[in-house]
Amino acid sequence: MNITRKNFKETFPLIVESINEADFLAIDGEFTGLTNGRKSHSFDTPEERYHKLKEGTCDFLLVQFGLCTFTYKHEEKKYISKAYNFYIFPTPLNRQASDVRFLCQASSLDFLARQSFDFNKVFYEGIPYLNPAEEQSLSDALQERHNQSMNNELTYVSPSYESPAFKGPLVIPEEHKSFIADICKKIETFLKDEQETSLQLPVCTAYQRKLIYEAARKRFKMGIQLDTQTAENRDRFIVVKKASEEEKKLVEQKKREADWEELKDAVGFSNVIREITRSGKLVVGHNMMLDLMHVLHQFASPLPEDYEEFKSLAHCVFPRICDTKLMSSTNPFKVNIPMTDLGNLTKILERAPFAKPNIEFAAEEHSYSTVANQLHEAGYDAYITGLCFISMANFLGTFQVPIPSRIPANSPLLEPFVNKLYVMMVVDIPYMNLVGADLKPNRDHVFHVSFPASWRTSDIVQLFSAFGHVYIAWINDTSALVGLNYKDNAGLVMKTIGEGESYKIQTYKDYCQTTQVICQTTAVLKRKVDGSPPVKSPRPPKKRKSSGILNPDLPPTIPEEQEETEHEDLGAALWGQPLGKARPAFAKALLCLLHLRAVVSMIVVKFLHLWVVLRLWVRHICPSTHKTCSVRANNRRATHKKAARKYN
Amino acid sequence: MNITRKNFKETFPLIVESINEADFLAIDGEFTGLTNGRKSHSFDTPEERYHKLKEGTCDFLLVQFGLCTFTYKHEEKKYISKAYNFYIFPTPLNRQASDVRFLCQASSLDFLARQSFDFNKVFYEGIPYLNPAEEQSLSDALQERHNQSMNNELTYVSPSYESPAFKGPLVIPEEHKSFIADICKKIETFLKDEQETSLQLPVCTAYQRKLIYEAARKRFKMGIQLDTQTAENRDRFIVVKKASEEEKKLVEQKKREADWEELKDAVGFSNVIREITRSGKLVVGHNMMLDLMHVLHQFASPLPEDYEEFKSLAHCVFPRICDTKLMSSTNPFKVNIPMTDLGNLTKILERAPFAKPNIEFAAEEHSYSTVANQLHEAGYDAYITGLCFISMANFLGTFQVPIPSRIPANSPLLEPFVNKLYVMMVVDIPYMNLVGADLKPNRDHVFHVSFPASWRTSDIVQLFSAFGHVYIAWINDTSALVGLNYKDNAGLVMKTIGEGESYKIQTYKDYCQTTQVICQTTAVLKRKVDGSPPVKSPRPPKKRKSSGILNPDLPPTIPEEQEETEHEDLGAALWGQPLGKARPAFAKALLCLLHLRAVVSMIVVKFLHLWVVLRLWVRHICPSTHKTCSVRANNRRATHKKAARKYN
Repeated sequence: MNITRKNFKETFPLIVESINEADFLAIDGEFTGLTNGRKSHSFDTPEERYHKLKEGTCDFLLVQFGLCTFTYKHEEKKYISKAYNFYIFPTPLNRQASDVRFLCQASSLDFLARQSFDFNKVFYEGIPYLNPAEEQSLSDALQERHNQSMNNELTYVSPSYESPAFKGPLVIPEEHKSFIADICKKIETFLKDEQETSLQLPVCTAYQRKLIYEAARKRFKMGIQLDTQTAENRDRFIVVKKASEEEKKLVEQKKREADWEELKDAVGFSNVIREITRSGKLVVGHNMMLDLMHVLHQFASPLPEDYEEFKSLAHCVFPRICDTKLMSSTNPFKVNIPMTDLGNLTKILERAPFAKPNIEFAAEEHSYSTVANQLHEAGYDAYITGLCFISMANFLGTFQVPIPSRIPANSPLLEPFVNKLYVMMVVDIPYMNLVGADLKPNRDHVFHVSFPASWRTSDIVQLFSAFGHVYIAWINDTSALVGLNYKDNAGLVMKTIGEGESYKIQTYKDYCQTTQVICQTTAVLKRKVDGSPPVKSPRPPKKRKSSGILNPDLPPTIPEEQEETEHEDLGAALWGQPLGKARPAFAKALLCLLHLRAVVSMIVVKFLHLWVVLRLWVRHICPSTHKTCSVRANNRRATHKKAARKYN
Repeated sequence: MNITRKNFKETFPLIVESINEADFLAIDGEFTGLTNGRKSHSFDTPEERYHKLKEGTCDFLLVQFGLCTFTYKHEEKKYISKAYNFYIFPTPLNRQASDVRFLCQASSLDFLARQSFDFNKVFYEGIPYLNPAEEQSLSDALQERHNQSMNNELTYVSPSYESPAFKGPLVIPEEHKSFIADICKKIETFLKDEQETSLQLPVCTAYQRKLIYEAARKRFKMGIQLDTQTAENRDRFIVVKKASEEEKKLVEQKKREADWEELKDAVGFSNVIREITRSGKLVVGHNMMLDLMHVLHQFASPLPEDYEEFKSLAHCVFPRICDTKLMSSTNPFKVNIPMTDLGNLTKILERAPFAKPNIEFAAEEHSYSTVANQLHEAGYDAYITGLCFISMANFLGTFQVPIPSRIPANSPLLEPFVNKLYVMMVVDIPYMNLVGADLKPNRDHVFHVSFPASWRTSDIVQLFSAFGHVYIAWINDTSALVGLNYKDNAGLVMKTIGEGESYKIQTYKDYCQTTQVICQTTAVLKRKVDGSPPVKSPRPPKKRKSSGILNPDLPPTIPEEQEETEHEDLGAALWGQPLGKARPAFAKALLCLLHLRAVVSMIVVKFLHLWVVLRLWVRHICPSTHKTCSVRANNRRATHKKAARKYN
């Protein structure tokens, strides 16, 4: 159901009812852009990621919000859902209200356009909004204005006034004097004529209207009422009416009530978020970090500088959230889900071992069809996110005996996923924990390298070639974090390539200390070498808060903080290594091989040393040859660089 | 005629033809926002204004461009016009192309929405564009990519690559190994089967497709061709085809040609501006400084830091421009034009002493009706700007004997207006001169005052109360430029109120020197005290470059640089003073009065001094009383401040 400025007020009670009767809510947002400023990388801590997103993405605007409510009908054993698709736009209420400037990203708008997104609906009919602070400030301003107009004080304008126009008591300029005199004469005649009840003045500019108001106020102290009206062709003019002081007061009173009503309406969409908060219901989203940040930023409070403060704010506005991207990327789901993007996930979760949930739309206007594929309309995305959540929740139930008909949103089975936000593209930290400390994986195998801007991936790969495969997270053009695939080699790095002519290398720990990045290296995340559990016979978790009511066969869930977490091979896909599924015996053999490899590496390093000595020799003994060589190498590098740019 | 991505290519030759056959062109632009950052004020020099606009407004986007061509048909004695309304949007061509981030202002979009602006047309069908530098860079990139793919080099990705995905040689992760092996088996079977000509692989993610490409390239060196296709439901999959090396080369060749064609198309709207430049035709706009800056910034070159460089760039891209807002605000037009906004101007210029020009649209698709009032659609605005220009040009002809049937765009009568841009809201500099030095009016009567943030207009008015009316140009919350209405009092200011406890005051000259603002005080702009000339009997200008072919009855035009300019009372409206039209005798009496006033002022100043002494006495002798008073005063001020905010 599309909700715009036009039907928001009348629909709002229904929305509140839907929220209050629901078992859980699913949400989604569409924005005018995604990325700006510092780039995210694969070794960001959740705190670093928060700061990057805060800086880079909150200048964009959330323009569409999807809300889908899901209510379970026990007798019919099915969910009833209601989907709402809100169009949102911060039309300024008046001159006191802030005139929002927001950023757009061309590729994002182009993407939305390809999904048939209706921009006209946003800018023509978008629901306005105010956060609580803005509402308070406008309410104060309105109260002051009313008090002031009652005292009829002479007002002096403020320098923060937007328009560059005249700022002071009005003096009628010469060229307008005859026009104003003419108008005054007209009003005089009108006041004398007992037959006439209203007088329409000629169309004129805003400045002239201001002059008329000022002149009329001075000249006709009593008995008239001026009102600016707009013609169909958008021309604006003043209408003069006769009015006794009582009539004027009554009109004034009505105007004031209208002002308050208008302010109430201007809070607009923020009321929906306030109702969600009030309900305390579980809110489900897919890869919802950005959605959450935008919602908080626009409708609750500008995002705080402090990370812990952000967590508090988020938890305060959304007391219970669950991210389906995090669920689907974690076992027991992960082994059955090759693609976790929302579109594919929905399809995958319709097939075995999962099952399509029994869902019905409350009414025609709430309905979406998964066949129609309206992907990236926020209301539809919220709906299919809810579908995915129910499928995955019910799948958790299949590990219980007897298998329950459904897993409710408040089931302890879901607790491990609650209040955790999926963190995209990070190799060793799958989520941000809104209600506790974040995971602190061991990063002893990660190194920070800084180098000349001419360096490419191949240069870094070459530098680390003695230590096997590496994972490179570019920070900018002159630095990167490099993770060793064979972590056992970590101890060798600083000893062998720690000193470089053209580059600087340091451990992740040192890097964090020097850059004052909050480095979390206390908890150790042990990489699992034995195979992940086959479906339906997983290892029981070491510690579980709500284990009492659980079948011991329940699969392990996502790593928890404050214990030695066993990372469910989230990094394996990224690392490109098959360790996660290797059989224990094979793993042992592999370890032997790794040790062998380390020995080989040492030999390679010796060769490298030899090469450096040779290079020095070449430079000092036969500099001319060296010069030619290095010029050639530089040329090759430049070509590589150019080539690489084109390829992307 | 609406021009979008869909019909741009086919219409372009017609547009070029229209430009080339035209007598002059009229343009207009619509933007996603207007103001951001430092505020303009009424004592900005053109250079300061340029810098403020450059900083504040070029982050917004020009999304609609109106072009209307006007061609005079001598035999029919009428103009034939063709109106084009372009929708413009920087859809990125590919990943090498810059992904533009631009700003929007909520109130501006709301304004456009109220004018029924079609945003969907912009984002769905906007014509892309590249400036020459971007075009060159993409052309280089494409050439490199082609060279590289011919050599079939292994490519390494660049760190400036947008996506945070895997950056290095691809290793197939374990969980995708069976999938990829399966695909390879399928391809193998397909290659053996002589009957089949193409094989559609299953739908998969972009990452999986990348893996397939990589695996296929390694495994099947010859004889196959892979191509990614998109299904109707937007699913993407790879199609494998058998292809000999010759066939592959042919396909490659065609792809390359398509790449070049695509790049050519991506230059898009910039081609229209290039054609306008090439034509050298007079380009007319209304209040066109912002239009010009946006056009240069988006389609020619990012706006230069240096002001003179900007002037050169502007003059280079638009060799001849004329601003109808400047014309209509200058005599001989001004006396007959009370409102110079485009909508009202058009109406005014249809009536005597002006005359509606004889204009016909070339065809139905080019037509607009002035009755329909499509104000703020760029094509329509360009059209009525052209109408206004013709009316005003023809009006200049009415001063000649015999009156010509029309004044052509290259008439010397128009020369004084050519290459001058109207500068909004500046009291004493009406225009920016693109082909010479800007006007340097005398600002000896202007003072810079800095004060506490609590000060309001009333405080400044009070400070200067001894010198009569003042004009205040707020710079920010703690400083303003103050101009005396009675300039003769200028000499007294520093002597009397030059030293202040809570404020700092300095002359405009000193202010310019301290802030290193380019202060232009060499040329003197004498304020005219005698009346402005009645229509049809104006004073001849003192100096005129092209006076040889002019009737001596020609009305004076706008002030010219490098001579003692006689400002046509442009400031009078803003100053709110009738001096401009006072009779000489009366003016003398007025001057006497002014001197008298100065004497009175001196007495007032003495009183002020007395007050300061008294205040000091109060502070030191009875501090408790003073405290109470100042608390009260502060409260009053705070209330004023709040009240003033509400009023605006």
